[in-house]
Amino acid sequence: MKYAIQPDVVSAHNDKLASDLNRDFEVLGEQLSRKGVDINALTEKAQAFDIAVPSWGTGTGGTRFARFPGVGEPRNIFEKVEDCAVIHQLSGCASAISPHFPWDVVDDFSELKAHSDSYGLSWSSVNSNTFQDQPDQAQSYKYGSLTHTSAAVREQAIAHNTQVIEWGKKLGSDTLTVWVGDGSNHPGQQHFQRAFERYLDSAKAIYAALPGDWEMHLEHKMFEPAFYSTVIQDWGSNILAAMETGERCKSLVDLGHHAPNVNIEMIVSRLIQFKKLGGFHFNDSKYGDDDLDSGSIHPYQQFLIFNELVDAEHRKQPGFSPAYMLDQSHNVTDPIESLINSAIEVQRSYIKALLVDRTTLEGYQQDNDALMASNTLKGAFNVDVSPILAMARFRKNAAINPLATYRASQYREQAAVARPDTGGSRSGIV
Amino acid sequence: MKYAIQPDVVSAHNDKLASDLNRDFEVLGEQLSRKGVDINALTEKAQAFDIAVPSWGTGTGGTRFARFPGVGEPRNIFEKVEDCAVIHQLSGCASAISPHFPWDVVDDFSELKAHSDSYGLSWSSVNSNTFQDQPDQAQSYKYGSLTHTSAAVREQAIAHNTQVIEWGKKLGSDTLTVWVGDGSNHPGQQHFQRAFERYLDSAKAIYAALPGDWEMHLEHKMFEPAFYSTVIQDWGSNILAAMETGERCKSLVDLGHHAPNVNIEMIVSRLIQFKKLGGFHFNDSKYGDDDLDSGSIHPYQQFLIFNELVDAEHRKQPGFSPAYMLDQSHNVTDPIESLINSAIEVQRSYIKALLVDRTTLEGYQQDNDALMASNTLKGAFNVDVSPILAMARFRKNAAINPLATYRASQYREQAAVARPDTGGSRSGIV
Amino acid sequence: MKYAIQPDVVSAHNDKLASDLNRDFEVLGEQLSRKGVDINALTEKAQAFDIAVPSWGTGTGGTRFARFPGVGEPRNIFEKVEDCAVIHQLSGCASAISPHFPWDVVDDFSELKAHSDSYGLSWSSVNSNTFQDQPDQAQSYKYGSLTHTSAAVREQAIAHNTQVIEWGKKLGSDTLTVWVGDGSNHPGQQHFQRAFERYLDSAKAIYAALPGDWEMHLEHKMFEPAFYSTVIQDWGSNILAAMETGERCKSLVDLGHHAPNVNIEMIVSRLIQFKKLGGFHFNDSKYGDDDLDSGSIHPYQQFLIFNELVDAEHRKQPGFSPAYMLDQSHNVTDPIESLINSAIEVQRSYIKALLVDRTTLEGYQQDNDALMASNTLKGAFNVDVSPILAMARFRKNAAINPLATYRASQYREQAAVARPDTGGSRSGIV
Amino acid sequence: MKYAIQPDVVSAHNDKLASDLNRDFEVLGEQLSRKGVDINALTEKAQAFDIAVPSWGTGTGGTRFARFPGVGEPRNIFEKVEDCAVIHQLSGCASAISPHFPWDVVDDFSELKAHSDSYGLSWSSVNSNTFQDQPDQAQSYKYGSLTHTSAAVREQAIAHNTQVIEWGKKLGSDTLTVWVGDGSNHPGQQHFQRAFERYLDSAKAIYAALPGDWEMHLEHKMFEPAFYSTVIQDWGSNILAAMETGERCKSLVDLGHHAPNVNIEMIVSRLIQFKKLGGFHFNDSKYGDDDLDSGSIHPYQQFLIFNELVDAEHRKQPGFSPAYMLDQSHNVTDPIESLINSAIEVQRSYIKALLVDRTTLEGYQQDNDALMASNTLKGAFNVDVSPILAMARFRKNAAINPLATYRASQYREQAAVARPDTGGSRSGIV
Repeated sequence: MKYAIQPDVVSAHNDKLASDLNRDFEVLGEQLSRKGVDINALTEKAQAFDIAVPSWGTGTGGTRFARFPGVGEPRNIFEKVEDCAVIHQLSGCASAISPHFPWDVVDDFSELKAHSDSYGLSWSSVNSNTFQDQPDQAQSYKYGSLTHTSAAVREQAIAHNTQVIEWGKKLGSDTLTVWVGDGSNHPGQQHFQRAFERYLDSAKAIYAALPGDWEMHLEHKMFEPAFYSTVIQDWGSNILAAMETGERCKSLVDLGHHAPNVNIEMIVSRLIQFKKLGGFHFNDSKYGDDDLDSGSIHPYQQFLIFNELVDAEHRKQPGFSPAYMLDQSHNVTDPIESLINSAIEVQRSYIKALLVDRTTLEGYQQDNDALMASNTLKGAFNVDVSPILAMARFRKNAAINPLATYRASQYREQAAVARPDTGGSRSGIV
Repeated sequence: MKYAIQPDVVSAHNDKLASDLNRDFEVLGEQLSRKGVDINALTEKAQAFDIAVPSWGTGTGGTRFARFPGVGEPRNIFEKVEDCAVIHQLSGCASAISPHFPWDVVDDFSELKAHSDSYGLSWSSVNSNTFQDQPDQAQSYKYGSLTHTSAAVREQAIAHNTQVIEWGKKLGSDTLTVWVGDGSNHPGQQHFQRAFERYLDSAKAIYAALPGDWEMHLEHKMFEPAFYSTVIQDWGSNILAAMETGERCKSLVDLGHHAPNVNIEMIVSRLIQFKKLGGFHFNDSKYGDDDLDSGSIHPYQQFLIFNELVDAEHRKQPGFSPAYMLDQSHNVTDPIESLINSAIEVQRSYIKALLVDRTTLEGYQQDNDALMASNTLKGAFNVDVSPILAMARFRKNAAINPLATYRASQYREQAAVARPDTGGSRSGIV
Repeated sequence: MKYAIQPDVVSAHNDKLASDLNRDFEVLGEQLSRKGVDINALTEKAQAFDIAVPSWGTGTGGTRFARFPGVGEPRNIFEKVEDCAVIHQLSGCASAISPHFPWDVVDDFSELKAHSDSYGLSWSSVNSNTFQDQPDQAQSYKYGSLTHTSAAVREQAIAHNTQVIEWGKKLGSDTLTVWVGDGSNHPGQQHFQRAFERYLDSAKAIYAALPGDWEMHLEHKMFEPAFYSTVIQDWGSNILAAMETGERCKSLVDLGHHAPNVNIEMIVSRLIQFKKLGGFHFNDSKYGDDDLDSGSIHPYQQFLIFNELVDAEHRKQPGFSPAYMLDQSHNVTDPIESLINSAIEVQRSYIKALLVDRTTLEGYQQDNDALMASNTLKGAFNVDVSPILAMARFRKNAAINPLATYRASQYREQAAVARPDTGGSRSGIV
Repeated sequence: MKYAIQPDVVSAHNDKLASDLNRDFEVLGEQLSRKGVDINALTEKAQAFDIAVPSWGTGTGGTRFARFPGVGEPRNIFEKVEDCAVIHQLSGCASAISPHFPWDVVDDFSELKAHSDSYGLSWSSVNSNTFQDQPDQAQSYKYGSLTHTSAAVREQAIAHNTQVIEWGKKLGSDTLTVWVGDGSNHPGQQHFQRAFERYLDSAKAIYAALPGDWEMHLEHKMFEPAFYSTVIQDWGSNILAAMETGERCKSLVDLGHHAPNVNIEMIVSRLIQFKKLGGFHFNDSKYGDDDLDSGSIHPYQQFLIFNELVDAEHRKQPGFSPAYMLDQSHNVTDPIESLINSAIEVQRSYIKALLVDRTTLEGYQQDNDALMASNTLKGAFNVDVSPILAMARFRKNAAINPLATYRASQYREQAAVARPDTGGSRSGIV
């Protein structure tokens, strides 16, 4: 087992903080026990929580206007794995990497897998890319991929997806996530129904190549890169496509891909009810697909989403096992810091949602006691569960204070020296 | 056959305008023939076009803050029928009335039917009301109707809907439109999944009472009266509910019931594709469910919706026969004027959409010639089809200039005398 | 001094909860002291916090579709004062009432003042109403009030506002809040510039009647009741109007009156900077002017607004003294419960904002350490300050658990008996 | 005088279309004369209309995800000028170019000016760029430019702007347009007031360098590239900044830079009223700053904006002379085609707005005849003014059918050969 950061850097930091943590944990435990909640059971839940990190998130992101790269950015998937190792080592809750192809293609996948194994990291869903043209590509995706009017383009896009599945198998993944930017910028440019029919045909062709124990996740998005219409524009088109495609085809929810004001937690509930919730791309946003750090703008909304998830778990909803992943663009922060922080913020929502007394809530719902139902959720949200999260990390030899530990480790400064050339990086997406 | 306005008032007006109309029609006909379009075929389409008027739309609408009634408002369904007769007589394209129960309940439906028959008017979809409490009601809808946690409330709401079907049969209707305000104002107030399950059970119970040649239309709405969650909040929940409920259960699209920026014409296409487009509530809006006059804010969007409808007609999409209705709140205009004007504005979109050369458009779509595809639609939209609409009215003995004719008829002034008491009107919804 | 609820009901409840509260307060104090924060200083701030209650908020609200009144609603301003007395007695932070005229007009204002004095309540800003027609009114506001094209209507609206000032003087108020629904539903209906010029003239005429120690607050709103344009549609028009009108004319921010996605805390900062922040109408919303309970949907946004307010206080920004008021529509809850709860939720945001270490934050801002700046705010927000809020109430003889105490008091049940007729209530606005 | 396209290609096309055009023009003239409108006066207005083209718009645009360049893209400002020459030659209404620095910096500006002069093109507002880092730059704009916490960065940004003015002088420009992406992605990252104070200081420093006959235009934008807050986020901050900076500092309106649902025509009216409307960046959008072709999504909104502009012209509003410019991202079309088409679509809105009978409209406004006021605008909008636009082009030796002429000219195919290397183009912004 390798470590991206020397374990003694972590333990030295933890040593200084352990006493206060123990005290805060004890006190919170006492308060929770008054409500009949066992803090250690909660802490075990926190220890078991895990969220995947996207390989591309380790690079600085940008906008169509500019990208301002930081120093020491990873130049290839091996270096991205190292950064992911830091994230997991310090957060204790991010042990899987989600790769993006062809960005992360390597000659020798067994070498890559050995590399990630050495850090105790695994591979979650694999992502295909048919929204960009690659240098050696026969057909262009300028006017679409899985929905293109040309059969040759669609076939190329389908073949790429089946290739991605093959690469994923080598890494031990079991999910293919399909996001396409297909759509139109002008009214009339695309025939809505024909485009969707082509999408369904393409999706079925990919699904046919899916191993029997894999899932295929479709991702919807309201707009961008297409600005008048997008083929899978919302959860309605998404779930219909998933239903048409096959049982193991499910819908993926990215928090930033919805129309303004939309009640996302309700969409989550609908997908759970119809057994089609595949997973999440967590991030936060104020305007569009801003890809901000999870929980940094609307933490209560994130909690309300987890309220649905924990409720489904609690009700033992059949077939419920969504995949969690971060999907953010880190334009002004150190990506490693943002990913550590965001993983924990998602974990925070999960633990808070576990605090909701579901029997009490159900009683208020049954009685239409709207204010007490609301306060039941707010009461759980208001509890500061930081000691639980910190204790979960401490017990897993992760960092009580991950950001301070990271900065003290000088990992970034060392990477800046070790990785001099980041100009050409394809990470961070811009 | 009775007339709400003396036919000689109409013909006197038309006589003055006929010469210019004939000239404009001739010239436009020449221009269209250059493009291979037969103006008389289009005019026949315009003559055949019809859109239903909601009975409640004949009264002045309002907001939660105030209602400013006009003079001579209809005080009962018989007077509303008279106003609808004016609308159809002058517009020539609004021969059906959509009643709302219990507002429009009468002791003797055959008397009401004879009344509407005498004006040549028929009855389109019947609307139930479980979003308000009626004076004599056993159970309150304060916390929901079809989704209420109490079985007694749900049963009352179901019974009301089946009663509405019975009333509708007496009037010759063949569609039940179900809109409920059910939802919540507080996170936690309602269990999303359980509420939706109750909705589905209730909808199926109503559907079981539906005559074999009727359709049932479900209407979704993002918000208002519920401000945190609404049970049928969007087309996604709507189509799933329609699919679960039965083959003749379809989705109804109200143009003002969507999230900001949503591409409504695409939703229309999806519903057509999945054979679930039941019909429309036409109106326009800038902010929320503003219920403004159709085409007064976003005329191009209304055209793009008709582009989908005409395309489906053109492709002979199986099972395609949506119902058209206006649903507006006339807060600052004479409702009769707004309804006449709006019926014609919807008709205008239909005729413009018929001008689209679909073979040409399909070619541009196939070639990804986005600009020419866009211009094909814009080119049709830019044509001023007013002479076609006016000629269609003229040929049906409706008014060439409906608003001027209406004002000249002094119908409103006479109604003000004949209908002195409008204070207690339930029309206009507020 | 009178009490709306028997003090021994309160103290009996408090007795049962005091021990746990003391324990939680002690523990939190210890945790805060580690960060250099004095919990008692914070608690004094909480004790000093006060937010006004709108008289109309004590009745059940509604929508244009329906209103579902509760039992025991106040039938006049005297009964509203009693309800406000309950709210303040239990919350300890809502000692002022904001009246609405002509709804709250009485024959004898000294009697009304004596009534409120007896409960230790005072009167904050007075509100005029030119968005509804009153039975005896000469001119109608159907097409506007302060901006109407008719001078007679404008003069009536101005005269009403100056009359409201006179009534306010009798109650000891020192602020006039002006909200008008003026605007248009159709493009072209109103000439934007001329309407705004008329607004400015009217505002200046009212301002001329303002006592020298009063402020006049203008309230903007994006839409509703006008659905195409509103004269004071946003903070831009608001601040320009305030600047044109006079030094003591300021802008009032209602949290639900903005376009989707707008950064409200930034608007607050701008108004502070230009010395034009008059005050707030607190509520929460998901879609439009939903008037939901404060902090029930976007608690972090409410915190971020208080972060601006506390920052201005901290910087001793000249002329900074905004007025706080709740403005909510309680459609599905007991209004007294919602107002108690909401007053405390606003207070909660204030106390959390006081926890922000402004020196540390400024350092991160100076260094562009975006993540640590964000975490500094989130860190303060994450602290559960409930013990501070409860202790502040306890020390003021208010209720440690206000909702439980209120329910135990059976105040509503007694009001239901004492106030049998609520059908005609003008409270709650619908 | 040079031509980008051989004049005989244009005239050959025109010859084929002239007969039908003359016929349509004659007929429309007759129809308009019935309404008292002189078609030749309108055509002269159309001939006099001119809108600037942004140099960067001649390249294919893109998104943060990808850019799909077309063939024959201009590789430098000289080639961009040639493309602009095509646009003007065929549209007859786009004689000015707006350059962007440092993208368009050349060693010898007199050579560039001679080049544009040779095509009869002039230079409109110059644009500075402090939202990207240039290779040789001392300070980074990652965390802001004019508002950066570091004085050195601000000074560099100010110096760049004053340099841009100097370059602009050499080209004969008289306006500096300032758009900055400054803002924040995290709550707390930036102190709103201090950032705005720094902005004002920087703006004043630039203004001090402005020649006495120049204007400085500030551009606001709700979001992107900053996703939590933007320093000049809306017209409120914009006009306040313009007022603080100086008399010749004005606000520029980009149609895609507003919050959802905002009434942009009303903002235009406010800026006109306060003598601060500097100009426009025309484009269209459905979701965010989509930068779609002008009038392609919301043509009626564009008309309503011109209704305000024509009204101000009609009222001889003092100091009213806004600058018009296109600002679009052409991701899926040939940029030359989109720019030709868009220039004409803006011109179309202008001519339609001239058709509004302002005396009649004012009468309806005075009488609160909302429907007839609305119909007065819609009536003008419904007229198909295409023959006027085509005749204006024909009379200026531009193309009756610009797109067909352009395609027939094979300009793009020739450029593809003449400009083999477009990979490194900085045009199109991505």
